[in-house]
Amino acid sequence: MVRAGLIRKLSAGVYNYLPLGLKVIRKVENIIREEMNRAGAIELLMPMIQPAELWQETGRWEKMGPELLRIKDRHDRDFLIQPTSEEVITDLARNEIKSYKQLPVNFYQIQTKFRDERRPRFGIMRGREFSMKDAYSFDRDVEGLKKSYQIMFDAYTRIFKRMGLQFRAVTADNGAIGGSGSQEFHVIADTGEDAIVYCPNSDYAANLEAAESLALIAARAAASAAMSKVPTPDKTNCADVAKFLNVPLESTVKSLLFAVDQESGPAKLFMLLVRGDHELNEVKASKIPGMAESRFATEAEIKQACNAPAGYLGPVGVSADVTVVADRTVANMADFVCGANDAGHHLTGVNWGRDLPEPLVLDIRNAVIGDPSPDGKGVVDICRGIEVGHVFQLGTRYSEAMGCTYLDQQGKAQPMVMGCYGIGVTRLLGAAIEQGHDEKGIIWPISMAPFEVVICPMGYEKSEAVKAVCDQLHGELLAAGIDVILDDRNERPGAMFADWELIGAPFRVVIGDRGLADSQVEFKGRTDAESQNIPLAEIKAKVIAAVQAAKQSIA
Amino acid sequence: MVRAGLIRKLSAGVYNYLPLGLKVIRKVENIIREEMNRAGAIELLMPMIQPAELWQETGRWEKMGPELLRIKDRHDRDFLIQPTSEEVITDLARNEIKSYKQLPVNFYQIQTKFRDERRPRFGIMRGREFSMKDAYSFDRDVEGLKKSYQIMFDAYTRIFKRMGLQFRAVTADNGAIGGSGSQEFHVIADTGEDAIVYCPNSDYAANLEAAESLALIAARAAASAAMSKVPTPDKTNCADVAKFLNVPLESTVKSLLFAVDQESGPAKLFMLLVRGDHELNEVKASKIPGMAESRFATEAEIKQACNAPAGYLGPVGVSADVTVVADRTVANMADFVCGANDAGHHLTGVNWGRDLPEPLVLDIRNAVIGDPSPDGKGVVDICRGIEVGHVFQLGTRYSEAMGCTYLDQQGKAQPMVMGCYGIGVTRLLGAAIEQGHDEKGIIWPISMAPFEVVICPMGYEKSEAVKAVCDQLHGELLAAGIDVILDDRNERPGAMFADWELIGAPFRVVIGDRGLADSQVEFKGRTDAESQNIPLAEIKAKVIAAVQAAKQSIA
Repeated sequence: MVRAGLIRKLSAGVYNYLPLGLKVIRKVENIIREEMNRAGAIELLMPMIQPAELWQETGRWEKMGPELLRIKDRHDRDFLIQPTSEEVITDLARNEIKSYKQLPVNFYQIQTKFRDERRPRFGIMRGREFSMKDAYSFDRDVEGLKKSYQIMFDAYTRIFKRMGLQFRAVTADNGAIGGSGSQEFHVIADTGEDAIVYCPNSDYAANLEAAESLALIAARAAASAAMSKVPTPDKTNCADVAKFLNVPLESTVKSLLFAVDQESGPAKLFMLLVRGDHELNEVKASKIPGMAESRFATEAEIKQACNAPAGYLGPVGVSADVTVVADRTVANMADFVCGANDAGHHLTGVNWGRDLPEPLVLDIRNAVIGDPSPDGKGVVDICRGIEVGHVFQLGTRYSEAMGCTYLDQQGKAQPMVMGCYGIGVTRLLGAAIEQGHDEKGIIWPISMAPFEVVICPMGYEKSEAVKAVCDQLHGELLAAGIDVILDDRNERPGAMFADWELIGAPFRVVIGDRGLADSQVEFKGRTDAESQNIPLAEIKAKVIAAVQAAKQSIA
Repeated sequence: MVRAGLIRKLSAGVYNYLPLGLKVIRKVENIIREEMNRAGAIELLMPMIQPAELWQETGRWEKMGPELLRIKDRHDRDFLIQPTSEEVITDLARNEIKSYKQLPVNFYQIQTKFRDERRPRFGIMRGREFSMKDAYSFDRDVEGLKKSYQIMFDAYTRIFKRMGLQFRAVTADNGAIGGSGSQEFHVIADTGEDAIVYCPNSDYAANLEAAESLALIAARAAASAAMSKVPTPDKTNCADVAKFLNVPLESTVKSLLFAVDQESGPAKLFMLLVRGDHELNEVKASKIPGMAESRFATEAEIKQACNAPAGYLGPVGVSADVTVVADRTVANMADFVCGANDAGHHLTGVNWGRDLPEPLVLDIRNAVIGDPSPDGKGVVDICRGIEVGHVFQLGTRYSEAMGCTYLDQQGKAQPMVMGCYGIGVTRLLGAAIEQGHDEKGIIWPISMAPFEVVICPMGYEKSEAVKAVCDQLHGELLAAGIDVILDDRNERPGAMFADWELIGAPFRVVIGDRGLADSQVEFKGRTDAESQNIPLAEIKAKVIAAVQAAKQSIA
């Protein structure tokens, strides 16, 4: 993006948007605005700088970490720079909306936001200052919220379709905003930050953080081996243990010890078990009752609970104070291998019920490729995605905290039921480029390209014929509503073509004296291998048809 | 604006823009954008949050007062929220522009700004967070700058004309941005914060701060009276002294003592003299050599310099350390009255050269109505204005401080010569309302109105005929490009009419069963005393013609 002249970095995670980049932003904003308006949402504009008091009402002033940029004004009063605007819109709603007759309503803004990321990265993908469309719906009840949510879901689907992006709606973890029921929209790209678990045979898709994992073993087999302690010197991970004992990795169990600090007394300990070839899912782990705020156990805590160093821990004979939680798959294993709680030793032939008590069973692992799809429609695959949109059912979390109520038909005050809906405007530029590029530069979808067509004259200043033809075609295409640019910089052809391939104009027309001698001009799509010679008399119609076809292919 | 549902205050000087207010902002932005583009300026977008380092290069980080909101990020690095963007654009230019071939160029943005005003007031007129269009021109030389400046001046003239505002371009003081040569654009309104001195017979107009005042007395008359000390008990201002002595106020002189602190030793004192009926101009006073940073003298300093309390000060016999500066008019006075430097006494018959040394003569007073116009074309009048635009010739102040140079045709590095050009987008809303309102509400110029036309149905839900006619007219006017709204709220007529007069829709169509019985509807301009009955068949053409006529009247 920097090379293509779209943006320039000012400081970490803070960018200037140059004219070409701004033009793409405006196209993105317009698509969003049109579809939000079509969905009945109402645009307004909330301030960047917001008073701390509102954020104290919901507790987010204290709860949010340093990514919330807190500032003091000249009178030493606390303010912040908005990362989102739930508090301000809820304040507005409680002041403006009195009656059930005014509901439902959905307000949105397209506004600069700031999140003070510790490590801004991936250019504008995870910048600190960025532009976001944020919408907030207010309904009378949960049923209404579900309708408003579906309307936004459909609008988002139209928005990303119109942008010409390959995307997928995925079930999401709810994150810090809270509430229940949310989906993310991801642009599919190999470089994406998020892993998406999806079923190729169905609509099922979920962020790896949130994707449900079923048990891989339908029922527990009967015990067939006696439990036995075996020496496993210096074998501190499942892969090494399996190799050393010559057993499949799938018969081993990994034991992880976590601690949750208590207000007084020693920390409460949890031992989490996943199969040797699986990974613990930290988001799922955080939802284990009592584990919302956990940390790895210290060496001293491990020693006290298991009397062994990390690498040799296991659920057999662990201190009774430790809550043992087994992943669904582990719970159905028989004759498995795990640490012996004795340095340099593991246990084999371990069986639930016989050798140790039945554990608490929960879904706590990451899904892997080939897992059964939770919707029963086959097995899942995993791809990478860039989150560009998020729809949330917030419920009454903010409205109850802030006293945002309406009078129902019986005249009784009820909290409004809220949803919120975000789209990362500037991030969409980065995502589109991650999805569409080659070694020459950007391959924009037609609806996002800074220009649809570039006219490249060969000798604009030298040949009057070239100039005349270029100027006329430029004017005619503009009049036909085509977003066309005439490159009158008098660069050499090689440099000029390279620039426009880098910038990513979807179509290029080259006009030179040589072709004009035969009344021919060259036409080339950005991803075409070769250019075509087109009769001059037909080029205008050719360009218009090509742009329209490109637009229709994504509509 | 709050009553009309345009804005809501969030905190001091920080506002939410509700849908109607945002719609006006968008109209204003579009006019600005079209005219900036027409003038060849290029839109880009700079960050809200800017690193302190750039502002340290120009010294503004230290120089600007607490209205610059300084912040620290999570890594304790210094940032600020942009009040303007000279530093960032100059940084961009020094990185992007290398050759004289790339000049001239003019970049602009329409962006949120923040100035931490001590006392935000007048609603959005002097808010803390506001939207501003800021443009920055870069030229090879001063001659080029003058051209770029004139292009912007002309663009601004078109912009404010298209908005349908009564405005005046006035010579301005340069303020904190520095540089030389600047003009302000003021919307004329009785409630304006600024006083504008203008000549009804010419283009001359200047902010009172900057308006030159000529001497009101062409030549000094010969002395005709002896200097004499007279008792003036308890008469400490010129008006009381003139009345007590029975002399015209115009024969008295007011003496004001200022101090300028020095790095070491006592403060340097200045006695400024203006005629009894005139006011000192503080901006002009700050330009007296050595007086850039002055304060009123303390009682002790007054006592030491004049040996008298305030109210009885005068230039005769003042300590030799005090620099006496007389306004041009005072310098030409003869036989005047001033304080005697003796409590309870004034001097009469005072004459320059005879009773005291000739003073330093400068223009240090405020212009008053009836003063001769500095352009010699009559006498001036004074009106009040609201500054909505400002064009500056910055010169090389920023480019030299930041090393922003280009290579000239000889390959030699030269500092770029800059101009900067601002328009207060959100302030324009307030200014338009200050200029156009009555007791019923806002009278928008057609080009700024949130809607051009409102259709008010009498019984939209009750009468199918009314609904059908309203819906059809609404659709037809929309199709004709009219910005029309149909009020389907089913309010009672009185409340509905009052709302739309408050909001300020320029034209109103009322459709009800009674009129339809005769195939008539009502049409009324916002400022018309009475509505007209129009045949239903003609109303569409009538509305279109009225909107077009209103647009043409301001084009």
